[in-house]
Amino acid sequence: MSDTTMQAALGQQLMARLDDAARHSQPGPGVTRLFCSDEHRAVLELIADWMRQAGLSPELDASGNLVGRNERARQGERTLIMGSHQDTVAEGGKYDGMLGVALPLQALQALKEAGTELPYGVEVVAFGDEEGTRFQSTLIGSRALAGTFDPESLNARDADGVTLGEALKAFGGNPQEIPHLARRPEAVIGFVEVHIEQGPVLEQRDHALGVVTALTGIERHRMVVMGKAGHAGTTPMPGRRDALVGAAEMVVEADRILNATDDLVGVVGKLEVRPNAVNVIPAEVNFTLELRSPHTGLREQGRREVLEACQRLAQARGLELSSERTYQAEGVDCADWLVEALEQACRGCEEPAERMFSGAGHDGLAMHGLTDIGMLFVRCRDGLSHHPDEAISVEDAGRATQVLMRFLTDLGKDARSRR
Amino acid sequence: MSDTTMQAALGQQLMARLDDAARHSQPGPGVTRLFCSDEHRAVLELIADWMRQAGLSPELDASGNLVGRNERARQGERTLIMGSHQDTVAEGGKYDGMLGVALPLQALQALKEAGTELPYGVEVVAFGDEEGTRFQSTLIGSRALAGTFDPESLNARDADGVTLGEALKAFGGNPQEIPHLARRPEAVIGFVEVHIEQGPVLEQRDHALGVVTALTGIERHRMVVMGKAGHAGTTPMPGRRDALVGAAEMVVEADRILNATDDLVGVVGKLEVRPNAVNVIPAEVNFTLELRSPHTGLREQGRREVLEACQRLAQARGLELSSERTYQAEGVDCADWLVEALEQACRGCEEPAERMFSGAGHDGLAMHGLTDIGMLFVRCRDGLSHHPDEAISVEDAGRATQVLMRFLTDLGKDARSRR
Repeated sequence: MSDTTMQAALGQQLMARLDDAARHSQPGPGVTRLFCSDEHRAVLELIADWMRQAGLSPELDASGNLVGRNERARQGERTLIMGSHQDTVAEGGKYDGMLGVALPLQALQALKEAGTELPYGVEVVAFGDEEGTRFQSTLIGSRALAGTFDPESLNARDADGVTLGEALKAFGGNPQEIPHLARRPEAVIGFVEVHIEQGPVLEQRDHALGVVTALTGIERHRMVVMGKAGHAGTTPMPGRRDALVGAAEMVVEADRILNATDDLVGVVGKLEVRPNAVNVIPAEVNFTLELRSPHTGLREQGRREVLEACQRLAQARGLELSSERTYQAEGVDCADWLVEALEQACRGCEEPAERMFSGAGHDGLAMHGLTDIGMLFVRCRDGLSHHPDEAISVEDAGRATQVLMRFLTDLGKDARSRR
Repeated sequence: MSDTTMQAALGQQLMARLDDAARHSQPGPGVTRLFCSDEHRAVLELIADWMRQAGLSPELDASGNLVGRNERARQGERTLIMGSHQDTVAEGGKYDGMLGVALPLQALQALKEAGTELPYGVEVVAFGDEEGTRFQSTLIGSRALAGTFDPESLNARDADGVTLGEALKAFGGNPQEIPHLARRPEAVIGFVEVHIEQGPVLEQRDHALGVVTALTGIERHRMVVMGKAGHAGTTPMPGRRDALVGAAEMVVEADRILNATDDLVGVVGKLEVRPNAVNVIPAEVNFTLELRSPHTGLREQGRREVLEACQRLAQARGLELSSERTYQAEGVDCADWLVEALEQACRGCEEPAERMFSGAGHDGLAMHGLTDIGMLFVRCRDGLSHHPDEAISVEDAGRATQVLMRFLTDLGKDARSRR
């Protein structure tokens, strides 16, 4: 079989498996598969089957992860962990998460069928919960492996009032056992996740694959602009304290600052006006400001610039501005050696390898606490994710599978996997 | 009694009457008195009593107005109509509307008690409905007098599904008879309304009274800015089509244009973002644009400037902008002779008379179709109206009553009232 024929076959098989997995969804548009749901249970049977075909032994762990290990991993040899999450957002797509489960299994099966035995432990994990759709509590499975699981999250409740702990027990998990899932760092080679890009960069540059250098840090602020309401017909323009005009200036200025800084992105995604009436001068505007950068210093510098500019703008209009940080998560770097090994695998397959940072959070955020992490991004159509129209091409699916196979094979030649 | 003593007494009596009227309100903060409600019925008994004390004969007309006429008016002599509306917004104040009913009755009573007989017909009207709070349909009573009543409005329904026609019948009105309420223009001298300013101009200039030169025209637009949603972490800043950043630029630019033009005011009072999520680039923003000016040409010029600027801003960001006019009402001018007569009355009472336009709509908008109109504005605290804290001072109440007495007396010397 030629490389091209093999790539096409791999791509088609992978896409067929992703279509199969997508059938396990709540009714409605796209894919909705929540943590510890009937759909979760059903898709794990499918994944367990893929694992067996790839030469791994599947097992449901205490935190709801399905873990497949090869013989060497079961024997306690140093192990490369791969995987991603099985859960989706409400009305999400077929690829976010599931690609990172199905693709390494496809690669391992192809290597096995080609008679290539990897000289190190291999484990593929279908994490139960990364999106947090059902319980608003995320990274349960990857935190369990990293030993950073917070038992408090067992008390999180879904929309029906069921706690995460109750749901997990009913699903076959065991909340008490979760702390024992923590891996010993010295037993792990690293963690590699394949994921759709969820952005337009690869598509714009006409590259199929990207090698992730860092996962972004995130901070969010709640901003409140207070002005003075008034009758919009009888209050002269000069002297108005229109909270919306002030907030609008802040939105424009924040966008200007963010555009002027590389590796820093942000958005005012939510904005609400009070009293929000056609003929009343806005008295109050609430908006959110989110900033993301893989570089903490850059993010902090951007925050200072934006907040200072907003304060200046508020003052100039006689408005009061208060801001409160509502969320902060530090970014993490991918390990240089994994970045380089993934790049080398791309080169080996004659795929241009774009270095990029991930603007979204992933299981790697938790796994970074345990081991070195690496991520391979796959181009997605229109940069779209978290949407029923989320798509990747069959060609890119094949390319990514071949690159991962090359990476796994090369890792066998690397001292790291044999220490 | 000295002028100052008399002014103080008039102010105190007027304020006491306004306090009495305010008791006829739904429970809750401020005053809520709706068209054809029990509170409306109760307050008309009070007003009928004031009318009788002022030498007028009260009568409920077919459209729900309480109309008080002096003997000459009943005899068919040419008549000056004064008055304002009895209804309020939900949780409104004591003065918006009711001041224009109570004050002319107070003035007429004082003239009567001083033995001054006016040599022309006088009529004071407590219009049933100007705010449109209950049926969203406004100026019922003044349109009836002007002969521009639209029978369609009888089908408007309140929150309980009761039609205006049904409510009016139950109240003692007669929908069929409304067309016969139209006055003959040649029988009317003019229409004069006293009203709180509902803005801060008089207070800022330290003047008690303002003479209105025109009632503003109003137009409203619904603006829809369409961009493209995207993951706020994974979509690079350049190339974003963020509908909120574009809309914010439009809000700022509209405010700049409106500030640069005298006699033109406007506001973006309502703005809504879709999907309005902290981590999603805004795909769509809907906002309202309202413009007001007493000069139609100025308002049209302002509209062109603002809409053209918004289109330019949309294009520059790759956004689509659509706009739709949702409301338009032309402004009307007050009659020069009434403006001058009110100014002269102010001068006669040593009150500085500020000429100003009304940024709000009033019964005069309808009465202008029948006759010459004039308006006297009274300073209100903090420019506040449509609010429980709406307030005027007892001194200003007295000043305005004296000015109206002077106006009425002087009008008796004027040929216009005797033609």
